Amino acid sequence: MALTLRVQRLFSNYLPTRKKQDYNPMKVRVTVMLKEGVLDPQGKAIGHALQTLNFPGVGDVRVGKIIELDVDGTDRAAVEKQAEAMARDLLANLVIEDFSVEVVA
Amino acid sequence: MALTLRVQRLFSNYLPTRKKQDYNPMKVRVTVMLKEGVLDPQGKAIGHALQTLNFPGVGDVRVGKIIELDVDGTDRAAVEKQAEAMARDLLANLVIEDFSVEVVA
Repeated sequence: MALTLRVQRLFSNYLPTRKKQDYNPMKVRVTVMLKEGVLDPQGKAIGHALQTLNFPGVGDVRVGKIIELDVDGTDRAAVEKQAEAMARDLLANLVIEDFSVEVVA
Repeated sequence: MALTLRVQRLFSNYLPTRKKQDYNPMKVRVTVMLKEGVLDPQGKAIGHALQTLNFPGVGDVRVGKIIELDVDGTDRAAVEKQAEAMARDLLANLVIEDFSVEVVA
């Protein structure tokens, strides 16, 4: 009997971890863009590269980040609030960036 | 008379460049995300950081790019097609990334 236990524990690392019954994540999308007026060198570089690739009529180019998270929770407003706190604490640099939070599913 | 011309040309670099009358750009948003199954170390790092900041229930985290472009044109379909070509040629690495194009305004 002890052997089977040991074998079970040995292989438990390789078995797909059973999803916890009460874990039903919501998909949240946080979009982080540079504030208006902040110089965007990455955008400028992409703009020049597009022109050299002969794409006509390309004006201003702005580059930002999009972060999709699975957040555990059933209450949409609470999940949204938590995502905003994550954005404020970690995901966005509030000095030069703006963020928007969207609960997708 | 020659002097005024020279002065005008001298300062023309500093004068705000008049917008060409027929330049009315459309705002296009290109979202580039890693394909499913492609390891996302940046997302993993953000997930760990959020856990250390005591944000509970954070599951999978995926990070992507969002590029907002002003593209000159009045026909929505043509502008969208052009943006897809830009994404295929430059903005996305089609081996590991998917992209989606959205004409915003």
